[in-house]
Amino acid sequence: MLIVGELINTSRKSIREAVENRDAAYIRDIAGKQVQAGAGYIDVNCGTLLDSEAEVMGWLVETVQEAVQAPLCIDSPDPKTLDTGLSLARFGQPVINSISGEKERYEAVLPLALKYKAKVIALCMDDGGMPVTAGDRMRVVRKLVPDLVCAGVPMGDIYLDPLIIPVGTSDQAGSEVLETIRRIKAEFPEVHIICGLSNVSYGLPNRKLLNQAFMIQTMTAGMDAYILDPLDHTMMGFYYASQALLGKDEFCMNYLSAYRNGLYDIR
Amino acid sequence: MLIVGELINTSRKSIREAVENRDAAYIRDIAGKQVQAGAGYIDVNCGTLLDSEAEVMGWLVETVQEAVQAPLCIDSPDPKTLDTGLSLARFGQPVINSISGEKERYEAVLPLALKYKAKVIALCMDDGGMPVTAGDRMRVVRKLVPDLVCAGVPMGDIYLDPLIIPVGTSDQAGSEVLETIRRIKAEFPEVHIICGLSNVSYGLPNRKLLNQAFMIQTMTAGMDAYILDPLDHTMMGFYYASQALLGKDEFCMNYLSAYRNGLYDIR
Repeated sequence: MLIVGELINTSRKSIREAVENRDAAYIRDIAGKQVQAGAGYIDVNCGTLLDSEAEVMGWLVETVQEAVQAPLCIDSPDPKTLDTGLSLARFGQPVINSISGEKERYEAVLPLALKYKAKVIALCMDDGGMPVTAGDRMRVVRKLVPDLVCAGVPMGDIYLDPLIIPVGTSDQAGSEVLETIRRIKAEFPEVHIICGLSNVSYGLPNRKLLNQAFMIQTMTAGMDAYILDPLDHTMMGFYYASQALLGKDEFCMNYLSAYRNGLYDIR
Repeated sequence: MLIVGELINTSRKSIREAVENRDAAYIRDIAGKQVQAGAGYIDVNCGTLLDSEAEVMGWLVETVQEAVQAPLCIDSPDPKTLDTGLSLARFGQPVINSISGEKERYEAVLPLALKYKAKVIALCMDDGGMPVTAGDRMRVVRKLVPDLVCAGVPMGDIYLDPLIIPVGTSDQAGSEVLETIRRIKAEFPEVHIICGLSNVSYGLPNRKLLNQAFMIQTMTAGMDAYILDPLDHTMMGFYYASQALLGKDEFCMNYLSAYRNGLYDIR
């Protein structure tokens, strides 16, 4: 199970300000706190800074690595920015966020995955647009996974992102993703499955409740990686509780030690 | 999906005191609040009062029915107490809690199920003792369900209770129950599946977190009835959130109306 800490993203106001002021101490602090809270990877995204994205990516990657030795998830739609981030990533195996079945993106990002022997987050989307049903997603998966494997990306380095649509705009949005996860696990058991959680609740009240429930549901169906805020203690509490209840925590030791270390709230 | 309100149980101090004082107003109040909060059935249990159980059951059933017209779940290990409660239940189709594959209990309770055309909660247990694995439970289910159906209990009136063991005493306890649910849904799709949630967390810290996560997990696997405290707003919030995310809430209307009516907490 993999937790990618999502906080270093310039779409967040505090990060944008820290980047503008080149406030390395703030970035280092957020990176360190995420690792301490259980993140195995640190996502780095400065996609809002269109004019200086590659340069800022370089600064962020170096700054984060002054604080933590966790591997990074280099997050950009721009191949040049990905290349800059990947070339500077020093610890472990980096993750590219993201490739997809869209022809242009696939052809631009695949060489980087091979050059840096990176893991890849692969969106279940092609030039046909955003998927709606589990069938739409599986149509992409059944082409994208074999293509990546044939090109030289090991099956276990692929993290499929089913792409989450708000349940408030389509009331089958959640169940179609759960069905997608079950089908991927049945057809490609070695492939990993990842998502960000917050889209699912967009436009509805009490979003945290929906995000937490959806993490537990998707984990039950077989998802094994999340991009989330590891400083959200309730979310992390549900993560440890779910793992214990799924029989993936011997003697509940991780649950108990997270509790003792105060990593989640008592409610 | 069925919610059975669990609060009228003499193992709870406030209920025991209300029974001792024949405080009908208190019992009526708790019954009314549970229905208002979304309970479709009201469980009535006075099993701690061994000497007067049948008499108290009669008083409780009459008292509850002065407040609400919900059907009741008559909860006792004693056939005479079940008979008393069932004979007085006036609204809808009552539920017997519980029958099992244990020979003596099966033979004593089956005639009551047929006499009152009641639904039955059927424990996945026989004279071989508490089940541990999904296989243990399915061995009981594959005899108990056909036996009940042959005897005249409609398939859709059977609510199987897989029996929850604390995950703190056996770290596969949760996953074995999830596997049991999946197998029951595959082999007997018309049968319902029910459980009480609190056993799963026994002996561990932060029990509510585990109980909430286990409700969401079991619902994802196919469980469709719960015995719980409907006045626990967070639990009910997760119930509505899970239903919406599973695609069982058209336009998220139940989720939104529960929110508007203040039925769950914002956190």
